[in-house]
Amino acid sequence: MISESKITLVGAGPGGTDLISLRGLKALAKADIVLYDALVSEELLQYCPQAVQKIYVGKRANKHAYSQDEINAMLVRFALSHGHVVRLKGGDPFVFGRGYEEIEYARGYGIETDVIPGISSAIGVPSLQGIPITHRGTTESFWVITGTTSSGAIASDVYQAAKTNATVVILMGVGKLGEIVDIYKKENRHSLPVAIIQNGAMPDEKIALAEIDTIVERAAALKIGSPAVIVIGEVVALHRDFIKSVRIHEFAIS
Amino acid sequence: MISESKITLVGAGPGGTDLISLRGLKALAKADIVLYDALVSEELLQYCPQAVQKIYVGKRANKHAYSQDEINAMLVRFALSHGHVVRLKGGDPFVFGRGYEEIEYARGYGIETDVIPGISSAIGVPSLQGIPITHRGTTESFWVITGTTSSGAIASDVYQAAKTNATVVILMGVGKLGEIVDIYKKENRHSLPVAIIQNGAMPDEKIALAEIDTIVERAAALKIGSPAVIVIGEVVALHRDFIKSVRIHEFAIS
Repeated sequence: MISESKITLVGAGPGGTDLISLRGLKALAKADIVLYDALVSEELLQYCPQAVQKIYVGKRANKHAYSQDEINAMLVRFALSHGHVVRLKGGDPFVFGRGYEEIEYARGYGIETDVIPGISSAIGVPSLQGIPITHRGTTESFWVITGTTSSGAIASDVYQAAKTNATVVILMGVGKLGEIVDIYKKENRHSLPVAIIQNGAMPDEKIALAEIDTIVERAAALKIGSPAVIVIGEVVALHRDFIKSVRIHEFAIS
Repeated sequence: MISESKITLVGAGPGGTDLISLRGLKALAKADIVLYDALVSEELLQYCPQAVQKIYVGKRANKHAYSQDEINAMLVRFALSHGHVVRLKGGDPFVFGRGYEEIEYARGYGIETDVIPGISSAIGVPSLQGIPITHRGTTESFWVITGTTSSGAIASDVYQAAKTNATVVILMGVGKLGEIVDIYKKENRHSLPVAIIQNGAMPDEKIALAEIDTIVERAAALKIGSPAVIVIGEVVALHRDFIKSVRIHEFAIS
C-alpha cells in the first residue's frame, strides 16, 4: 500500500547544501520519490531515504530534460503511484520557478499540495557576497525581475525599474545584459553600480563589479555567463571590493 | 581564553522554528552569545549551547528594548569579551533588517563579520498562504517596499509601484494602509486584489483578502494589526479563498 498522494514543492535555496530550511530537509526525509532541478545540489539528495528514486528534470545548457507539461504530468502520475512526491527546486519555488503551475495542475486531479519556501537567489546570492539588498538611507525597496519572459522579450518592467531608486535584481538576464544596460543609459544612469554574480553560493562563484557604462566590458573580460544574478543600485557600492574593482578598470583603460 | 571575535548575522526566516537554514542552525550551535529580535521564535534558542547567554534586543508594541546604536555597541563589546556573537534576526538580515549597519559598525573595529541569509517574510509568508509572488503570464516581477522609512513618511516608491504590473509587497506598512490604498485608488486600480497577512507562519496567523476598494474595511473587521505583510497584485487572486472571500464581502454589503 502506498502512502497518501501528495506533492510538496521545496525551495532548496541558492548554491550548496546547507541553505535549505529545516522544514525542507524534513520533507526530503519523508519523500517516496523526488523530482529535482538543475540548480539543486545533488548532495541534498542524501537526506532522502536511500531506496527513494531521484529523477533529474532540469535543464542544462539550455536543453530541457522535460517540458513543463511533462513535469506536471509526472508529478501527478508519481503522486498516484508512489505517494509523497517532493519537487525540489533551486531558490524559492514561487520566484520565477513555475511552482504555481505545478500546484494548479495537481489540484485539477484533487491531489494535496504543499509549499516550503526557500531562500531566493535574488536576496541570498548578493547577501553572501556582502551586498545588502536594502540599506537604510540608500534604498527603501528592491524590485526583482525575470530576464526571461514567456514571450522571450525583455520584461517591460525593466524600463520602469530603470527610473526608480529601487535596488533592481534581474534573474536569468545575463543573455540580455546589453539590452538592460542600454535601458539604463537612456535614463542617464551611467555611473550606477552593477554586480553580476555567476554560480552564486557555489565553489566556482564569480563576480563582476562595475558601473552601467563599464559592466558589459567587465563581464566579458571575466567571462561571466549564466546562471547569474544581476544587481543594479547604489547598494552594490557597499561591496568590499567595489571601489578597488572600479579603479582597476579605470586604470586599465587609461 | 575566548574564541576569536566574530559577528554572524543569521536570518531566522518567518514564523516558527523550522524555516531557518541548516547553515543558520550550525552558527547557533557555535555561538558564544546570542542577540535576538522580536520576530524570532524563542524555541530557536534551544539550538545554542545551554550555557550561552541569550539577550533579547527587539522591539515590542513599538517600544525598543535597545536603540540601533546600543545594539551596534553591544555586538562589538560582546565580540571582544565573548568571541562569536550570533545576531539572530527575523526573515532575512538585509531585507529592511538594518543588518548592514551592524556589519559596517563592526568592521570599523576590525571585527570579522559573516551573513547567513534567511527566507524573507516578503516571499515566504505569502507563499505559505498559497499566494505565489510570481506566476508566468500574470506577473514578471515583484517589488518589495518598506512601509516605515527612516523619515516616517511613506516610501515614495509606493507611488511608482502603484503604476506597474509588479506584485507589490509592503513590509511594516499596516499602520499606513489607508495611505497606500489611496495611492492605488488615484491610479484607478480599485479592483486590484490585496492580501494582508498578520503573524505570518505563526499559529495565530490571520489573513484579510479583498480588493483595493474594500481592504481597509475588511482588515478592520478582522482586526488585522502588525506585524503584517501586505501583498498587492493579480497573484493574490490565486489564493484558494480569494473568490469566496470577496463574494462574502459583497453579500454582506448588499
